[in-house]
Amino acid sequence: MPIQSSLQTCALLVQKRISDLLPEEFSDSKLVEAMRYSVLSEGKRIRPFLVITSAQIFGIKPLAALNVAAAMEFIHCYSLIHDDLPAMDDDDIRRGKPTCHKKFDEATAILAGDSLLTYAFEVLSDPTTHKDSTVRCELIKTISKASGFKGMAGGQMMDLENAHQKISNEELAKLHRLKTGELFMASAEAGAILGRSGEKERSALRHYANDLGLAFQIKDDILDHCGVSVGKVEIDEAVHKKPKENASIVDVVGLENAQKQLDLLKEQSVSHLKIFGDKAELLVELADFVVTRER
Amino acid sequence: MPIQSSLQTCALLVQKRISDLLPEEFSDSKLVEAMRYSVLSEGKRIRPFLVITSAQIFGIKPLAALNVAAAMEFIHCYSLIHDDLPAMDDDDIRRGKPTCHKKFDEATAILAGDSLLTYAFEVLSDPTTHKDSTVRCELIKTISKASGFKGMAGGQMMDLENAHQKISNEELAKLHRLKTGELFMASAEAGAILGRSGEKERSALRHYANDLGLAFQIKDDILDHCGVSVGKVEIDEAVHKKPKENASIVDVVGLENAQKQLDLLKEQSVSHLKIFGDKAELLVELADFVVTRER
Repeated sequence: MPIQSSLQTCALLVQKRISDLLPEEFSDSKLVEAMRYSVLSEGKRIRPFLVITSAQIFGIKPLAALNVAAAMEFIHCYSLIHDDLPAMDDDDIRRGKPTCHKKFDEATAILAGDSLLTYAFEVLSDPTTHKDSTVRCELIKTISKASGFKGMAGGQMMDLENAHQKISNEELAKLHRLKTGELFMASAEAGAILGRSGEKERSALRHYANDLGLAFQIKDDILDHCGVSVGKVEIDEAVHKKPKENASIVDVVGLENAQKQLDLLKEQSVSHLKIFGDKAELLVELADFVVTRER
Repeated sequence: MPIQSSLQTCALLVQKRISDLLPEEFSDSKLVEAMRYSVLSEGKRIRPFLVITSAQIFGIKPLAALNVAAAMEFIHCYSLIHDDLPAMDDDDIRRGKPTCHKKFDEATAILAGDSLLTYAFEVLSDPTTHKDSTVRCELIKTISKASGFKGMAGGQMMDLENAHQKISNEELAKLHRLKTGELFMASAEAGAILGRSGEKERSALRHYANDLGLAFQIKDDILDHCGVSVGKVEIDEAVHKKPKENASIVDVVGLENAQKQLDLLKEQSVSHLKIFGDKAELLVELADFVVTRER
């Protein structure tokens, strides 16, 4: 599948830029070591891919979008580190390795998350991100809004408040939009901002990414339900932990309906890309990948 | 003392702006409630005062500096919420009230801190902060650098790593510069950035705030040693907690030498203000206040 090689190329580029922005020489403290440990571990790098691929529609070369791609990954990674803490989801394994607080300790994990979040904004404000400060400010405004209490952090709060509770399909969709969708949307929009696109194009990318984020989450729930995922439940049981009972779309509407919603969302997401013609080919392929992936 | 009424006026202005930026109507979630609970509780508001008073030197009216002042308080408050967590300093009382994780819970406190930090950058990137996006980017760059792993968060890490250990006077000065000084410096510099000052003026304010931050910390240590402070040790003992044994300048050099260092630092700090003449009067008074305050 060609999209997989594109994802891989993007992941390598982003990995390199992250390592350059956070070089090993800084690792005289445990703090930078913990930041590097978490952010340089393997991931799909879908948010950076969204940034880079959306920017390409407007003729922006991948190298010119790498600071923003790295910043999005810093923010995504900070959210994983904090979500994994004992006071939150209490996870021991992430991306096949011990979570940050397991590898180091809780205090270090809290500070590593804080520092990755803060560093994202330092990188975004730097002239190497884009020579025009108006573009940089627009990036910061869009990304901070998507990450904070009106976005991702608000979604995590909603998730915690609804754990072990019945939740409606609509509430679940809102939760996923905040927790996953907002950062997907900000990533695609960031590409448009870098490309100084018109409002119509930016809005199309936003709608695409909104549907994609929801589809991504539903697919995760389906994989979890079918036990294909990372085997989290088995891991939890092996360490005698109560499996996390976050709201799952499969529990709410059943497997069949979840699959239907997934197909519908995929169609809807790519429909927003029509205005870009062939230029959005990679984003269409990404939507295919998100709904057909097997892990 | 006239400085106290200036500090009070500033605190009221900042309180109002914070409440406007984070209105009660947002409090449909526990998250915003927790953010408001912590950031609207009473404090000295020294960082906002540094922003506003430094900006005034360059003819910037207090109202025009209020977004930056509020953002600095968001960041200061996020650091207090996270530092108070059980995995860090494990404090139950802050500013005379239960700490955020005591009033709410740990997960909410982590997310409230994260959200205040994120919101600071959203506010700073907004055109209402300053019409020139170059100024806004410079503010974000300076403040994020001072807050992250090269600044405040790095200082907290150093503090945790050195708890219950002997530390040299030089290391302690570095720790205080990172943990307290960096945010003091960024606050004073932010005033200069808002005022589009020259490099010489900005550097003078930076040096002033560096000395002031160290003096502030030494005075805290002296007050703690004399048992005048917030009575933290008594509170800790009352709840059968092991009193926190952070490095204290009094322990390292003794009370008399700490007092000498304090006087020296105050003289040194105000010497940097000479280039501003009468315009820096309030900053000189602030230095007096910092070293003579009784709590």
